Amino acid sequence: MEETFVPFRGIKNDLRARLLCYKQDWTGGVKAGIRILAPTTYIFFASAIPVISFGEQLERNTDGSLTAVQTLSSTALCGIIHSLVGGQPLLILGVAEPTVLMYTFMFDFVKDRKDLGQELFLAWTGWVCVWTALLLFLLAILGACSIINRFTRLAGELFGLLIAMLFMQQAIRGVIEEFGIPERENPNQAALLPSWRFGNGMFALVLSFGLLLTALRSRKARSWRYGTGWLRGFIADYGVPLMVLVWTAVSYIPVKDVPRGIPRRLFSPNPWSPGAYSNWTVVKEMLNVPPLYIVGAFIPATMIAVLYYFDHSVASQLAQQKEFNLKKPSSYHYDLLLLGFLTILCGLIGIPPSNGVIPQSPMHTKSLATLKHQLLRNKLTSTARNSMRKNSNLVQLYRNMQEAYNEMQTPLAYQMPPMLGLKELKDSTIQLASSTGYIDAPVDETIFDVDKDIDDLLPVEVKEQRLSNLLQALMVACCVAAMPLLKKIPTSVLWGYFAFMAIESLPGNQFWERILLLFTAPSRRYKVLEKYHATFIETVPFKTIAFFTLFQTTYLLLCFGITWIPIAGVLFPLLIMLLVPVRQYFLPKVFKGAHLQDLDAAEYEEAPAMPFNMPLEEQEIPTRATDIDSGEILDEMITRSRGEIRRTHSLKITSSTPSSTDDIKPAFSPRMSQRAFSPKFTGKGVVEKQTHSPGPSSLGKNNYGSSSN
Amino acid sequence: MEETFVPFRGIKNDLRARLLCYKQDWTGGVKAGIRILAPTTYIFFASAIPVISFGEQLERNTDGSLTAVQTLSSTALCGIIHSLVGGQPLLILGVAEPTVLMYTFMFDFVKDRKDLGQELFLAWTGWVCVWTALLLFLLAILGACSIINRFTRLAGELFGLLIAMLFMQQAIRGVIEEFGIPERENPNQAALLPSWRFGNGMFALVLSFGLLLTALRSRKARSWRYGTGWLRGFIADYGVPLMVLVWTAVSYIPVKDVPRGIPRRLFSPNPWSPGAYSNWTVVKEMLNVPPLYIVGAFIPATMIAVLYYFDHSVASQLAQQKEFNLKKPSSYHYDLLLLGFLTILCGLIGIPPSNGVIPQSPMHTKSLATLKHQLLRNKLTSTARNSMRKNSNLVQLYRNMQEAYNEMQTPLAYQMPPMLGLKELKDSTIQLASSTGYIDAPVDETIFDVDKDIDDLLPVEVKEQRLSNLLQALMVACCVAAMPLLKKIPTSVLWGYFAFMAIESLPGNQFWERILLLFTAPSRRYKVLEKYHATFIETVPFKTIAFFTLFQTTYLLLCFGITWIPIAGVLFPLLIMLLVPVRQYFLPKVFKGAHLQDLDAAEYEEAPAMPFNMPLEEQEIPTRATDIDSGEILDEMITRSRGEIRRTHSLKITSSTPSSTDDIKPAFSPRMSQRAFSPKFTGKGVVEKQTHSPGPSSLGKNNYGSSSN
Repeated sequence: MEETFVPFRGIKNDLRARLLCYKQDWTGGVKAGIRILAPTTYIFFASAIPVISFGEQLERNTDGSLTAVQTLSSTALCGIIHSLVGGQPLLILGVAEPTVLMYTFMFDFVKDRKDLGQELFLAWTGWVCVWTALLLFLLAILGACSIINRFTRLAGELFGLLIAMLFMQQAIRGVIEEFGIPERENPNQAALLPSWRFGNGMFALVLSFGLLLTALRSRKARSWRYGTGWLRGFIADYGVPLMVLVWTAVSYIPVKDVPRGIPRRLFSPNPWSPGAYSNWTVVKEMLNVPPLYIVGAFIPATMIAVLYYFDHSVASQLAQQKEFNLKKPSSYHYDLLLLGFLTILCGLIGIPPSNGVIPQSPMHTKSLATLKHQLLRNKLTSTARNSMRKNSNLVQLYRNMQEAYNEMQTPLAYQMPPMLGLKELKDSTIQLASSTGYIDAPVDETIFDVDKDIDDLLPVEVKEQRLSNLLQALMVACCVAAMPLLKKIPTSVLWGYFAFMAIESLPGNQFWERILLLFTAPSRRYKVLEKYHATFIETVPFKTIAFFTLFQTTYLLLCFGITWIPIAGVLFPLLIMLLVPVRQYFLPKVFKGAHLQDLDAAEYEEAPAMPFNMPLEEQEIPTRATDIDSGEILDEMITRSRGEIRRTHSLKITSSTPSSTDDIKPAFSPRMSQRAFSPKFTGKGVVEKQTHSPGPSSLGKNNYGSSSN
Repeated sequence: MEETFVPFRGIKNDLRARLLCYKQDWTGGVKAGIRILAPTTYIFFASAIPVISFGEQLERNTDGSLTAVQTLSSTALCGIIHSLVGGQPLLILGVAEPTVLMYTFMFDFVKDRKDLGQELFLAWTGWVCVWTALLLFLLAILGACSIINRFTRLAGELFGLLIAMLFMQQAIRGVIEEFGIPERENPNQAALLPSWRFGNGMFALVLSFGLLLTALRSRKARSWRYGTGWLRGFIADYGVPLMVLVWTAVSYIPVKDVPRGIPRRLFSPNPWSPGAYSNWTVVKEMLNVPPLYIVGAFIPATMIAVLYYFDHSVASQLAQQKEFNLKKPSSYHYDLLLLGFLTILCGLIGIPPSNGVIPQSPMHTKSLATLKHQLLRNKLTSTARNSMRKNSNLVQLYRNMQEAYNEMQTPLAYQMPPMLGLKELKDSTIQLASSTGYIDAPVDETIFDVDKDIDDLLPVEVKEQRLSNLLQALMVACCVAAMPLLKKIPTSVLWGYFAFMAIESLPGNQFWERILLLFTAPSRRYKVLEKYHATFIETVPFKTIAFFTLFQTTYLLLCFGITWIPIAGVLFPLLIMLLVPVRQYFLPKVFKGAHLQDLDAAEYEEAPAMPFNMPLEEQEIPTRATDIDSGEILDEMITRSRGEIRRTHSLKITSSTPSSTDDIKPAFSPRMSQRAFSPKFTGKGVVEKQTHSPGPSSLGKNNYGSSSN
């Protein structure tokens, strides 16, 4: 994305680019077949459940003016519109915590004003939304999103981790509250006796931890050793929703002499209950708001605008990180413009507006990457099997797979970095083959294990389409109708889910991995290298990594602290935006350029991003359960991150600067090539992973190199 | 052990053999230094905690005639005596569940008899103990234990699994009872309101699962990536006791308006409370028992005798399984004789007698194996490091390590199978070295990674000594005094610990692993082969394994069912003894001899066991925390089991009968050698283990073989 501040140019560019692939956005989604439901349901729960509990929170804070019904409808409405006419369909919209906070503050302000009061609350917020929208239009038109380029990993991952912390905080606070007496309930219920509160709290612990642990486990189901491949695939895809159902069912087990309200369940009116209607017609009352307040509405509007501008863009950015190798273009300006319209719309019908949410948006992309990975590998596997049945040799095998792969790509894709995966495999394969005399022998499992080796060749690719986003939004819409069912979910299950989302958002976050690295015993650091790892781990001295991470952590805690300050807390995005100048002008003074580049590559310092290009129609593929934990692999591939492109030079560095590797483990890199050459000494059941320059490509080199020396 | 029924010969042989190593039993223990405390505390908890809860159970069933004080004192007393003058010091004694059941039945019988009644209960059981002892003497003298040779893995592991099931059953039942109202407590306490029972039950769930999960985790601490090596070692060694403390502490967190008795804690009188004295003087009352009942006492005595004869011998056998490569002799006959004396002693002072317990006894051996493993590897590591500093080449390195190893062995040890580990390494090492031209190069980490590769050379060996047994018995004795402290432990923590023990006893049990194999997806079976695995997995067709396992499982469930029948339940050992003829005469008709041999080797079909020999004084070694999860490795080495000796021929079989391997994975074995030769195709972070013929030896051959073809 070019950095332009010429009015409307950003929007024009976005529109032009996205329109090119609009048709494919739909066909691609449809072609994926039934499988699209896996990421859809996964994201649906991730976006619906927090919205529901935010709704409950709003209801408490606004004396019922706003409930889960409104938050859900807003999420559904905005989600549907965005998935239909939005720019970046990977972006998930929803009512977020900051919005809830802002609305709470506004309510507290309004309810004491005699000339406004609770009845005009929504009307006034309507005006706030109008002002907000205008500001968003301004920002979008003037290309404010251009500076998103200046948002590096540093800021994005810090924000991601901050959100994770807020989710976890909510989870903990929620469970603790289960021990106390909930507000706004008549305290002479049996369920509110201290004895029952204790039981309720303990039960909440059981339910929330139960959900958290089982949900985390189920995500890893594909790598389980037991059960059929189909079952494992199903659990991995639908395990989380499944667990919500299971633990909700569990919450109904204790019946005998346990009073209603144990465990505490969601509290929300049905949309067809009298009160719930009122706010749809809020637009009529907007003119009853005293002019002074209409003007005054500008003040909160600025805060919300800043908030949305930031959240929306960063969410979109995190959903489009380099490591996902997206092929379709971004659309920051246009999406911000659309957000403006959505905000007005929500304001006029008296529901809190939605904006791009974290961690749901990156979760969405990741789940689609897993999907694409499975589709690709099914295709390639069948091809490989066929050509092996025709006992062709390695070169032929490779050619066939290459063709199969291309069928699923656009011609232009040949220049894409992912292709290297297949390309270089060929060379190294043939080298190995010739060196072992396999060259003309028909390939069999011993030379090329389809199930395992295919995954080495597959680049990370994402099933970019609009269908999953639309479907999940529609499901959210159904939730509004299904409110009576939703009420059966115990709140404690929600808290467990919050914790689950916080933890799910961690893998792939380099900031998080650097924190872990700090706590890793020096003698164990080599283990990090034996897995996928980002470039910096080999190229940057440990001390530098540590210092950089400590700086980032302090900054994170600072931001976290800010969120605790009542009204100003909403403005923590400003603090994060402050990172842009810090990164641009301050950090380069403290860190070596190369190191900074590896720790936190900034586009404006780096080579320009790859030109995008639009995929053609994709092949239909018979969907069948695959037997490898793509999800798991993906996590690692994604963690490996941007190393991909700049890996080769990073390798040179490794060999030239032992200093860097010394920090990790003495004589590490030679050992690795040694390992790669012969696992002789690595016998014994201890888990043993190959160190791994991203893609089999460089590993191939490793082998060849070491066996030749 | 020769199979002799000549009176007294068995006892004589045992005594002669054990006396030879008696001195070393003590010196060896002392030389191990402070480290001996790790296995000691580990076993202390494993033996004390069940005894305490059995005591509580007895108290309920005998209206307080017997309490945890008596069970603890019996365990301590018998433990101390056995560790001092017993034959096999690896055997752990304690009051076991069957004893509790028998005493319950006897109490129910006695309390209704007007001419006996509760006051003469202990006196009568005194007579039962006398009769039991006489029967045990008879069995010991006539060499009944000789037939222990006929107890194969089949029977032993089935019994082990049965005990695990009983422990797990107790854990589950215990947690469920936490929801109900405990017996013998005045029901108008606040803590007994249904509301508080609910809270108590939920709290119990939290505490027991908390203990179970954290305890299981802590055992694996050595393989953690975080924290210093010292900390990891400490947690792995003392984690379980630590967790009992932690969760007991947690149980004190809820204070505000939670009544006493929530959570429920251990209930037992202090030894110095008036009631507790009475039974020490029971011997005086024994003559008040009507003669008829003195004679009648013979009937329960026979049952107890059978029970003890079986439990004691099997516990001892499981503590001396082949895979532990014990160097010191067994002592079945003499130990049974001693048990007789202990039984009389306990009978006369009116406490329930103790006998050899499962799973504590095998747990004891295993923990001592871990200890020995650490001592060995410290020694070898330092040696290797030294000679590498003197940059000697592989051959020299090997020689030095060989010497170091021998210093810790007896000269005779050269013939021991464990030596093969070091012996064959030499060959394969040198072969590799010469093939790669490393032969004269000074060895460095890249050729020989001390931290990792040492473990390949170390055979399983056990620190055989009496100290740990004596110390743990003394600790149990302290518990009697520490009763007020013990009472602070919540019962729910106990239930969690029961579950922990059940699970801890599973790894290494081939029966259990075969059951898991049945549930392993066919496409994943190769994963079993990539780890240490018993011979049969490669040599026996899957169908046969499945059939054999199903037969064993049905038999297990049968035994489990029997335990539910009130009085006859105590006699389930008879059913297990029935396995001896079944194994000897029936199974050979159903299964091929070779298969049966691999699935369940019987000594009387096999080559005689290795001649034992007595180690000399061992070297003092500076104890320091090691950085590898020896425990984990041990589990696998032990699982690998008796394959060791007969491995070579088993390899031949594999290659000759693809049928067997086909069941596991098509073209598995060639692939493995391919893998061993070059992991080229195994790149990427997918967990990748080398298949592993036990000991690096045959792996070395693999490599060499495949790289030469």
